[in-house]
Amino acid sequence: MSKKGKAPYIGVDLGGTKILAAVISRKGKILSEAKSPTPDREGPEVVIARVVETVQQAARAAEIDPDDAAGLGIGSPGVVEAATGVVRFAPNLLHWDEVPLGRKLSEALGLPVVVGNDVDVATFGEYALGAGAGCHSVAGIFPGTGIGGALILNGKLHTGARGSAAEIGHITLLADGPVCGCGRRGCAEALASRTALERDLRAAMRFGRRTVLTDLMDAEGRIRSGALAKAAAANDLLVLEVLYRTAHYLGLLAGSIANLIDPEVIIFGGGLIEACEEWLMPTIRATAQQHFINRLDIEKVRIEVATLGDHAGVLGAAMLAQATFNNG
Amino acid sequence: MSKKGKAPYIGVDLGGTKILAAVISRKGKILSEAKSPTPDREGPEVVIARVVETVQQAARAAEIDPDDAAGLGIGSPGVVEAATGVVRFAPNLLHWDEVPLGRKLSEALGLPVVVGNDVDVATFGEYALGAGAGCHSVAGIFPGTGIGGALILNGKLHTGARGSAAEIGHITLLADGPVCGCGRRGCAEALASRTALERDLRAAMRFGRRTVLTDLMDAEGRIRSGALAKAAAANDLLVLEVLYRTAHYLGLLAGSIANLIDPEVIIFGGGLIEACEEWLMPTIRATAQQHFINRLDIEKVRIEVATLGDHAGVLGAAMLAQATFNNG
Repeated sequence: MSKKGKAPYIGVDLGGTKILAAVISRKGKILSEAKSPTPDREGPEVVIARVVETVQQAARAAEIDPDDAAGLGIGSPGVVEAATGVVRFAPNLLHWDEVPLGRKLSEALGLPVVVGNDVDVATFGEYALGAGAGCHSVAGIFPGTGIGGALILNGKLHTGARGSAAEIGHITLLADGPVCGCGRRGCAEALASRTALERDLRAAMRFGRRTVLTDLMDAEGRIRSGALAKAAAANDLLVLEVLYRTAHYLGLLAGSIANLIDPEVIIFGGGLIEACEEWLMPTIRATAQQHFINRLDIEKVRIEVATLGDHAGVLGAAMLAQATFNNG
Repeated sequence: MSKKGKAPYIGVDLGGTKILAAVISRKGKILSEAKSPTPDREGPEVVIARVVETVQQAARAAEIDPDDAAGLGIGSPGVVEAATGVVRFAPNLLHWDEVPLGRKLSEALGLPVVVGNDVDVATFGEYALGAGAGCHSVAGIFPGTGIGGALILNGKLHTGARGSAAEIGHITLLADGPVCGCGRRGCAEALASRTALERDLRAAMRFGRRTVLTDLMDAEGRIRSGALAKAAAANDLLVLEVLYRTAHYLGLLAGSIANLIDPEVIIFGGGLIEACEEWLMPTIRATAQQHFINRLDIEKVRIEVATLGDHAGVLGAAMLAQATFNNG
């Protein structure tokens, strides 16, 4: 066994608004963490320098040097080429085109680095330590601005022949349906993302339908997930209708994924699910399980809610690094 | 290397109407073959005895004993439990419930036997020797009475956590659309199977739409794939409309599969595709490639037609046996 045989791993969650870094034991215990705002308008060099500082801060808090760790994993927004650690582009970060994030961090910190897409990494965290612990095959569904997805098959991220697997937001659920942000029609994202949900709410409000949401929007007129939950709890019929429709489509999406992949568990996560779980999940579960063709009738596909919350990213990144670099 | 290190494999295609057996070299050359009608109304014992006879006949033609072969693969209709070789049920064969096909054949012939679902086996044949040769990840789509599907990932059949993977006929393409044979709504099968296609044609004919099909149906009033091709070639507008609609939905199905799995190639096969390729495939290809989200922009997903025809079953079964039993 090498000198680093018991060394911890470092996990980093690079988000559009904040950077979270943590030193994490091999069993998934968070030994220390550090947080910084993301300088998202200042280009990749500044962001990467900030990631390095945040990692150093987390390492100091755990009383190690960064290069005492056995490796580092980082989840990045956007499109990531996993084999090379290059972020091809990231719409939420200014000037992020073809950024060799893995190589830059590795040089700055003296560590092997693995880079993954943020949804892939969060799903890997749930697989290793959360709602999918003990399973070998997991699908992750994260409804947000779009609908993020990830697949883990036989304990490995399935990224596909061209890195385009798990683009579940663009599975067609309603042929020739509403136009999607991608220009196609009837994609899951056009029906069941936060964007679709807000589109439907605002259309109804423009036509004068009554809703307590009018009083719950924030100063910029945004409808936050917490406001949706408050409106639903107040039995607001418009919000309930739109949440149930969203859940119906998310259930069909989960059923279709189950019928193609048949994973042990499908995990739903993200802010919308966390805030509105009690209105979304019963419909999602019923619809998905009704649509799942289980010819051997062994058991129903499990439909779970993510359990790691804000820590899914750092935990998943560290576990992905461990799975990638722990060969002896 | 064992005595059987260069021995051929035996492939069997058990269909609802005929049994095909062949002795096949390790490189996929058909050394001999034999064919019998399936005694489909006489129960599993009689069918299995007929399979054994057909295998013996093929072996004699290749001048070997069956147990000189290194192993046998068989593709069966219905739901197959791959791990045990049990056919759970097969709607096209009378009294086939929980039939231990693998064990029975192994005992009768003195050979290791692997059993697969017919679509899985045909797709494995295309992967090993046909339209998917040289690829590691393949999806197969076979529109027929239903829509059969199969997935090969990293060179292995992906059957899922409960044996329910690749049930692509029941991916939702049109939420809340037409009722499917499974009782759900808007499944791919309810939109793009031969059954759906015939439903639409007959509905139009009942309402008096003109079509040359009226003169092309067989004595029992069935619409065969050859009749569809003849009508399309005669520029029959009803048949062309229905074929194009079928192709549109098959293209959306292929696009959704590509967006979830990102395989190297998607292979379409079966009698309908073979007969009507020139009217179906251009629309399927255009729609699928338009719907495929290829963020790394490496290449388009390949959409191909199966090339092994009636031999896909025996070739796939023999290659599956080789992949299963060839460990030294």
